[in-house]
Amino acid sequence: MKTLNVGDYLLHRLQQAGIHHLFGVPGDYNLQFLDSVIAHPDIAWVGCANELNAAYAADGYGRCNGAAALLTTFGVGELSAINGIAGSYAEYVPVIHIVGAPASQAQANGDCVHHSLGDGDFGHFLRMAQEISVASAVLTPENAVAEIDRVIAEALKQHRPGYLLMAVDVAAAEVAMPNHAEQQPEHQRSVAAAFADAAERLLAPAQRVSLLADFLASRWQLQSQLAALRQWRAIPAATLLMGKGVLNEQQPGFVGTYSAEGSSEAVRQAIENTDVTLCVGVRFTDTLTAGFTQHLPEPRVIDLQPFQATVAGEVFAPLSMQHALEALLPIYQRHSAHWQLAEVPECEESKHIDAAVISQQAFWQAMQRFLQPGDIILADQGTAAFGAASLRLPQDAQLLVQPLWGSIGYTLPATFGAQTAQPDRRVILIIGDGSAQLTIQELGSMQRDGQQPIIFLLNNDGYTVERAIHGAEQRYNDIAQWNWTALPQAMSVDCAAQSWRVSETVQLDAVMAQLMRNRRLSLVEVVMDKQDLPPLLRKVTAALHQRNSG
Amino acid sequence: MKTLNVGDYLLHRLQQAGIHHLFGVPGDYNLQFLDSVIAHPDIAWVGCANELNAAYAADGYGRCNGAAALLTTFGVGELSAINGIAGSYAEYVPVIHIVGAPASQAQANGDCVHHSLGDGDFGHFLRMAQEISVASAVLTPENAVAEIDRVIAEALKQHRPGYLLMAVDVAAAEVAMPNHAEQQPEHQRSVAAAFADAAERLLAPAQRVSLLADFLASRWQLQSQLAALRQWRAIPAATLLMGKGVLNEQQPGFVGTYSAEGSSEAVRQAIENTDVTLCVGVRFTDTLTAGFTQHLPEPRVIDLQPFQATVAGEVFAPLSMQHALEALLPIYQRHSAHWQLAEVPECEESKHIDAAVISQQAFWQAMQRFLQPGDIILADQGTAAFGAASLRLPQDAQLLVQPLWGSIGYTLPATFGAQTAQPDRRVILIIGDGSAQLTIQELGSMQRDGQQPIIFLLNNDGYTVERAIHGAEQRYNDIAQWNWTALPQAMSVDCAAQSWRVSETVQLDAVMAQLMRNRRLSLVEVVMDKQDLPPLLRKVTAALHQRNSG
Repeated sequence: MKTLNVGDYLLHRLQQAGIHHLFGVPGDYNLQFLDSVIAHPDIAWVGCANELNAAYAADGYGRCNGAAALLTTFGVGELSAINGIAGSYAEYVPVIHIVGAPASQAQANGDCVHHSLGDGDFGHFLRMAQEISVASAVLTPENAVAEIDRVIAEALKQHRPGYLLMAVDVAAAEVAMPNHAEQQPEHQRSVAAAFADAAERLLAPAQRVSLLADFLASRWQLQSQLAALRQWRAIPAATLLMGKGVLNEQQPGFVGTYSAEGSSEAVRQAIENTDVTLCVGVRFTDTLTAGFTQHLPEPRVIDLQPFQATVAGEVFAPLSMQHALEALLPIYQRHSAHWQLAEVPECEESKHIDAAVISQQAFWQAMQRFLQPGDIILADQGTAAFGAASLRLPQDAQLLVQPLWGSIGYTLPATFGAQTAQPDRRVILIIGDGSAQLTIQELGSMQRDGQQPIIFLLNNDGYTVERAIHGAEQRYNDIAQWNWTALPQAMSVDCAAQSWRVSETVQLDAVMAQLMRNRRLSLVEVVMDKQDLPPLLRKVTAALHQRNSG
Repeated sequence: MKTLNVGDYLLHRLQQAGIHHLFGVPGDYNLQFLDSVIAHPDIAWVGCANELNAAYAADGYGRCNGAAALLTTFGVGELSAINGIAGSYAEYVPVIHIVGAPASQAQANGDCVHHSLGDGDFGHFLRMAQEISVASAVLTPENAVAEIDRVIAEALKQHRPGYLLMAVDVAAAEVAMPNHAEQQPEHQRSVAAAFADAAERLLAPAQRVSLLADFLASRWQLQSQLAALRQWRAIPAATLLMGKGVLNEQQPGFVGTYSAEGSSEAVRQAIENTDVTLCVGVRFTDTLTAGFTQHLPEPRVIDLQPFQATVAGEVFAPLSMQHALEALLPIYQRHSAHWQLAEVPECEESKHIDAAVISQQAFWQAMQRFLQPGDIILADQGTAAFGAASLRLPQDAQLLVQPLWGSIGYTLPATFGAQTAQPDRRVILIIGDGSAQLTIQELGSMQRDGQQPIIFLLNNDGYTVERAIHGAEQRYNDIAQWNWTALPQAMSVDCAAQSWRVSETVQLDAVMAQLMRNRRLSLVEVVMDKQDLPPLLRKVTAALHQRNSG
């Protein structure tokens, strides 16, 4: 029987899960395991400047790759990363978090070792991790094979983080390679049939049917299934901001981003004013619905969630979104011919802006022109994400935003992770100055690894999204002012990056034209007014101010 | 009866606890409370670039000021800070962590609001915080006065963090100002007398008595009490690295830093080879004892801890360190005359090094000459902290290190916090390149606030302390290479900082001479060999490698 050590077995299972990069920061409790990583032919080590950034990078990688892995050290490392993992939990990204721990004997003794709280209790951080993981395990030589399999499988199934605590001696312990039996998928045919009957009763007589898709459909990779369904009939289709990109926005019927009362009136009508609204992988969040202002009464909704579906309030479970969509396809074939087509939205032919100063409106118009098929766009929480809601994405473009967890700074390391997953695609980051300060270090990692993302740094002199909610002129919304264009050079000794600072629309256009031609890491500092907001954000922040003020 | 809102009441109690600065990052759940902070006459808002840095800054402030406070927002903010708070817990720094939370009604509804996990459970982060806090509370208008008092009092008493979760509406709720009765100190006289009897029985016949003081004596501010005791007799006295600075190192009897078998032989003999060793606030940690190699048998030890004392294994409690030291004073008066004096350690008159390249030895010799009375020195975990163990601190100098928790990068924001607490003292930071990358952003905050610390950035091309433990030439111990001297300029638009890069000892001496004359934020990049180690660290890392390899 073939034997290998626990560390190598773990890497083997990560590789089988489609994970080819391990993000993290070394620490003396994980160095031996790192020897296995370095020696592994198919898993590359990607060191980051700190653990929070590493967790964000793993999350960004996971969104582009399907799953990701993170390695930190006990206590100090894992706790620094925990906010990133919490974001992966909230927004359904399967990140396997591996933590190197003190030797089993030191733990059993309750030794006062470094990176512990000094109280002999080695369970504090496991208990913290369990709040934000769907599965966790303290590995031993005896349980390692079964527990590694269980935690990874559960994380992949639920699309959420799993936690593995691996003491230095356990990583080195020998285990036997098991023979894995193929798991049989759960049988759901009778549930799917009952769901189909109920859905057909609702859809057959309907005149006006709309489709609302969201991020869970994206996590479960239903893009092509949704596109296939929509080919039968170009009914009105929209996404929420969090799921933007899951629908092909060039396909007929796409009406825009749905934000409940924050939407344009045409989009709101198209989605809400129907006989049936088909929701696929939708979650309603305060910031994306102008404070829960959606009007979608249960009797008119077919709601597909990862493990169940609901038709006019009746629940069908267990039923995966994929199987539910498959069950809907023949219903589309039979009935969709008499469903109303989406009205082509009136082209909001807002004039090309060439005011001296770059307004939010001018910036997003320029960005629309700049986008190309296949781009990966990351937009940080704040003016960037809410501005990106107005974009019409080109074919095969992908948008990464984090509006539910909403941890500012997330997208800069996530850009590093996304570009690691997709080295050949153009990656565009749009981020505010306040946000970029939290996680700037990964500019160095991008350059070390020769990456060439394009970064638009919106310098609006502080936390503009917060000014809009409360304290427009308060000092707490100011930040330290940096020389943004000097940062790529400061964070690389052999910097090949290029930087610009633009404050006029003609400059922005000229730089964008130049960016079309060459491929280097590029940072464009875009100077904007600190009180200027994309229109959607104005509605959202008004709602938040109201809610926070009770 | 005077009324005020909960936020104002909290600020009032922070101020009474001697806290005059609030560190943190704004978020939409704490903006209204921040209005109260800005309006407060005696508490200043100190915004940081991110929450982990803010927690480190608060910790550094707390070590210099006695206590500190931190403000973050729900979920994303508090979790980013949690590693810093855990360090404050492990190393006994009272930091009051205030978290702004969603409106009580949204929590009661279980709304899917931003910065939550989206599952309607608002208790996840409270439970995580409880693992690293001595007291915590979810404030309501009804309990706010009592709970704020309880959490702050408990944090101050135990010198560890307290956690206050304050919903946006609770911060604004009106409460009545209570009349506080003065708390009576616990009566400990009979315990102190019994302790004194037992201690005298051990000390009266002793010939060789030594004093070993550590960081808990520093946290409970017993510096002057220890100095008063030592004036009676210059017996051998040492600290562990973690408590370095709690003993006046210029006072006769000081023999150096005790590191068990990692010590010089003279120091080890002076402390261990005795009839009685008096330990004050000592905790033995793996990294500070070359892997728990201390030889201090219980029958010969008098051990003073924050809330109890032990004489040859017999426990006396409750008894504070302060009262125990008071009880020892008359025993010193009666018996110390016949205790052996400390031998003056042989001057390790290692020659002034002027090799071309700056060795660790040369650097620490130069640093010894550079120090002045009253300096605050911060040395990051790694070559910096272990090198600093060899320094003899001038009068009233203070050293901040974090060897138990050992979170690399801690000292850079802690320098910002220390300088905020002590604006008129010279603050010196010594930090490696790998460590500085984790938390570099606070270079910007220092400059925004016009601070003038002196930073020695030891550029030894990666994680040298880890190379010494394992993987000397492995790629995972490399980091992205930065242009260190460009960073102060990149992180300030009106930079008044100065930077140098030195690789020869004569250059280092010349820069240090210049630094004596002017006061600006100064960054000195000191280029060193990546495998060079201070002697103590060589012993410690050998022990850690042994322990991690089982």
